[in-house]
Amino acid sequence: MIRAILLISCLDQKGITAAVTDWVFKHGGNILHAAQHIDEKMGIFFMRIEWDMHGFSLERQDMRQVFSSEAERFQMNWSLYFSDEMTNIALFVSKHYHCLYDLMFRYQSGQLPHCKVLLIISNHPEAASLAKQWGIEFLHIPVMAESKSSAEDIQLEALKVRKIGLIVLARYHQILTGKFVRAYPEQIINIHHSFLPAFIGGSPYAQAYDKGVKIIGATSHYVIEALDQGPIIEQDTVRIDHRYSVQDLIDEGQDLERRVLYRAVRWHLEHKILCYSNKTVIFD
Amino acid sequence: MIRAILLISCLDQKGITAAVTDWVFKHGGNILHAAQHIDEKMGIFFMRIEWDMHGFSLERQDMRQVFSSEAERFQMNWSLYFSDEMTNIALFVSKHYHCLYDLMFRYQSGQLPHCKVLLIISNHPEAASLAKQWGIEFLHIPVMAESKSSAEDIQLEALKVRKIGLIVLARYHQILTGKFVRAYPEQIINIHHSFLPAFIGGSPYAQAYDKGVKIIGATSHYVIEALDQGPIIEQDTVRIDHRYSVQDLIDEGQDLERRVLYRAVRWHLEHKILCYSNKTVIFD
Amino acid sequence: MIRAILLISCLDQKGITAAVTDWVFKHGGNILHAAQHIDEKMGIFFMRIEWDMHGFSLERQDMRQVFSSEAERFQMNWSLYFSDEMTNIALFVSKHYHCLYDLMFRYQSGQLPHCKVLLIISNHPEAASLAKQWGIEFLHIPVMAESKSSAEDIQLEALKVRKIGLIVLARYHQILTGKFVRAYPEQIINIHHSFLPAFIGGSPYAQAYDKGVKIIGATSHYVIEALDQGPIIEQDTVRIDHRYSVQDLIDEGQDLERRVLYRAVRWHLEHKILCYSNKTVIFD
Amino acid sequence: MIRAILLISCLDQKGITAAVTDWVFKHGGNILHAAQHIDEKMGIFFMRIEWDMHGFSLERQDMRQVFSSEAERFQMNWSLYFSDEMTNIALFVSKHYHCLYDLMFRYQSGQLPHCKVLLIISNHPEAASLAKQWGIEFLHIPVMAESKSSAEDIQLEALKVRKIGLIVLARYHQILTGKFVRAYPEQIINIHHSFLPAFIGGSPYAQAYDKGVKIIGATSHYVIEALDQGPIIEQDTVRIDHRYSVQDLIDEGQDLERRVLYRAVRWHLEHKILCYSNKTVIFD
Repeated sequence: MIRAILLISCLDQKGITAAVTDWVFKHGGNILHAAQHIDEKMGIFFMRIEWDMHGFSLERQDMRQVFSSEAERFQMNWSLYFSDEMTNIALFVSKHYHCLYDLMFRYQSGQLPHCKVLLIISNHPEAASLAKQWGIEFLHIPVMAESKSSAEDIQLEALKVRKIGLIVLARYHQILTGKFVRAYPEQIINIHHSFLPAFIGGSPYAQAYDKGVKIIGATSHYVIEALDQGPIIEQDTVRIDHRYSVQDLIDEGQDLERRVLYRAVRWHLEHKILCYSNKTVIFD
Repeated sequence: MIRAILLISCLDQKGITAAVTDWVFKHGGNILHAAQHIDEKMGIFFMRIEWDMHGFSLERQDMRQVFSSEAERFQMNWSLYFSDEMTNIALFVSKHYHCLYDLMFRYQSGQLPHCKVLLIISNHPEAASLAKQWGIEFLHIPVMAESKSSAEDIQLEALKVRKIGLIVLARYHQILTGKFVRAYPEQIINIHHSFLPAFIGGSPYAQAYDKGVKIIGATSHYVIEALDQGPIIEQDTVRIDHRYSVQDLIDEGQDLERRVLYRAVRWHLEHKILCYSNKTVIFD
Repeated sequence: MIRAILLISCLDQKGITAAVTDWVFKHGGNILHAAQHIDEKMGIFFMRIEWDMHGFSLERQDMRQVFSSEAERFQMNWSLYFSDEMTNIALFVSKHYHCLYDLMFRYQSGQLPHCKVLLIISNHPEAASLAKQWGIEFLHIPVMAESKSSAEDIQLEALKVRKIGLIVLARYHQILTGKFVRAYPEQIINIHHSFLPAFIGGSPYAQAYDKGVKIIGATSHYVIEALDQGPIIEQDTVRIDHRYSVQDLIDEGQDLERRVLYRAVRWHLEHKILCYSNKTVIFD
Repeated sequence: MIRAILLISCLDQKGITAAVTDWVFKHGGNILHAAQHIDEKMGIFFMRIEWDMHGFSLERQDMRQVFSSEAERFQMNWSLYFSDEMTNIALFVSKHYHCLYDLMFRYQSGQLPHCKVLLIISNHPEAASLAKQWGIEFLHIPVMAESKSSAEDIQLEALKVRKIGLIVLARYHQILTGKFVRAYPEQIINIHHSFLPAFIGGSPYAQAYDKGVKIIGATSHYVIEALDQGPIIEQDTVRIDHRYSVQDLIDEGQDLERRVLYRAVRWHLEHKILCYSNKTVIFD
């Protein structure tokens, strides 16, 4: 079954839900999921609607144009996706491989929908053998303080050539420049190994240890130019106690990081995320 | 603001969402929340839609009739509620008062919406002073094995007279007869102090202790004739370890029971629960 | 059964555990609990040992002196408690009463061991009727920016007269001065309604809402002069989503705050907490 | 650093802790961890003590004999382990590989201490390529209803030859016979994909779906002859809702199963588990 997914946001007005569901219905679409959210404080309306394309009366290439007039009426921001359009993924990694491993296992098990993992990029050479084992192309692109700009140029060219639509920083320990980030708005997902906004920056587990917290967390977010400040997609926490060393926190945190990153990537691929005001709406 | 809430279930068909949202819109309703769910295995459609009655073109007394024709087209089961219609509540309790205390605190703080707590019924006299302190009517109705039927007759009469719409068993340690249960279908909420279906029946914490589980739970559910078998509304769990005595489990469990029961009662009052196939859909 | 509890910390050395357990044993004490912890990074040893006083060969008044020689050998910091010595508690509150309510319910149910709640102090008059209902003395001590110092003098005098050993800030929305804090080192427990160190200071739920976090938390800690920076005793978290308004966070957070504060108070009363390096060891 | 670990259980008596810690101390051992637990209901004492062997005055081969006289005095059950003694592990698997994958990743990352994974056994051939990739010996031993006994003979022989000390059923979907189970008491760890004692036996996720629970769980336990009834080592749970299909539960549960099994295996290898009365004490 091919499914169409429409994501919408606009100022809240009477009749939006009715207009959209009616538009789908009158063209023969069977609605599979429809969810809406209103930010009452800001007066913004959000909607995600998913329907079966079987029997839909519009050709795919005409849909955007036809829907445009509907959208203009409510001054909508909107995106239209189809479940058979694959998102090409590049995974960035440095020296910790648990997130990479986890995503690749899930990818190979069919748990990452509608995507192709095309590329693994690392500033270290060690992941090459893993990539080879999985049959994924691997690029070792060293990044030095003085060569970051040229390294990013090589990365950007590699991403462009392969039509990458989603970059996953699966514990990639380099700060991306504004140029890079702006090239992939809401298309770069990072995993930060703390419960943001606590413990921004380097060595968050050591920070957590020194602070003596009783719970640690992990956070996946879209990358923006301000470090660790992008819209939060998912978080999770786990209880610890005074007996945990920094290394114990690192070990325990692996599990958190893996599942928090996995969920964020999956929801992105399922087109369940809408960003606004540096926050996210996650339709479920 | 007065809100209307419509709960719908029927066989899944094309066009239901569009028909319902369009019906609300064309009568001038501003949709505040709309959520749907499809049980794909059973082919059943569920919907909850909530709108502002301000400017709605139908009078309240006419709405049910007008919507009926819409509903018949899809052979819907449906219910219509208004946010200014209060549900009258009776709280049943035996000898543990933490759930009673918690619900009353929340009620007095305004956290239990659209309801009036009219009555506390207990098979023991001890809660009388609490009831008095809160200004709630109290009935001490002893229940003996041989007098259960006549005790229930007294209870049922008291509920009927006060037009009670929701009975909350806030740790009431008597098994209700089929006659009683059938009189209030999907209107009796119980809190069971275990993670059902584990540890059905009496002394679940002692059962959990003997089994050596590492996590305990609590479950709120609608009461049906089969003991502890009704549709589950909410559950929660907490980690324990071998150091916990049965008494420690009882203490720790209080917290679980309170919040699990509170959520169930609240969702019921907000008309967020639909039952089918001995399960619940909880709209959020 | 009367129990003695000995809390010890010192530089880690060979033979401490043996020396302490042997000391208890040779005076006829039956050890009920013994736990130790070593901070390997800092080389510090911590111990909590609890034994039955029945048949113990030393009189209570002699124990401190006799143990001193043992303690000097290892240069221990140590404290000795007895289970029949009550801690006098004062509860401070402003305008949110859920923590106060919860602690009082637990106190009256016998869940707060070895203590007497003697006093409720508030900068607002509203809690007077609650205090009266529970039969607890109530002092309304208004605090204005310009009168804080004199208000604290009144508070301190009231605490001193009643031999208060533990001050619980059960949502008390005034910042204590250094003078006050220094008078009760490791004897003031606060509940902060966020997952510290995130969202320090005022309106943490509003801060959490604006940040778009997917989980909220609560933190209980000993009060030191730096705001919300004292040693963390306990934390807990709960999952939220984009549908939660600030008010929803406040409601949901109540539950967190109550149980996080309760645990901290209970552990303090059970002499299970040792502070060092602005962190806590919690023996269990 | 080589560490000795002593696990003890016996009837609770005065002086045990002192005797054991003193025994370690007088032979020159520096105690790194010491924890005890008393089951007050049954009057049983449990202890785990771990010390640095550097400078210990007894040779390893003499320790057992020397400690025996101490142990006899209290009629202890006891076991002595050394941190440089490797446990040989065999992993059993059928057709779901997430637990296998996870354990192997952790093993290769150094997170499974004091062990060697020597063997993967499966009743299906598919895992052969994974085993090859990791460089672990693989045995495909088909199990049919009529050939189970002879299949187990082959398995038992393979385990014996390789001196396997721990068998991990990493989603192995065959019920072991009493003969097999009795050959490895407290040496077989299973992962069951439900919150036991709920949903014993086959297809627990389908059972959970049909029951409409709001939380699912996973349980690791030692295997005894009664199916899914052995002492529980670890459990964990995760929240679900009515939108989850059985397949969603299976996906979500993977994460639970992996970490619950990992913790059990790790604690076993660290000699942190003591069994009694079909329950476990987990020292931490």
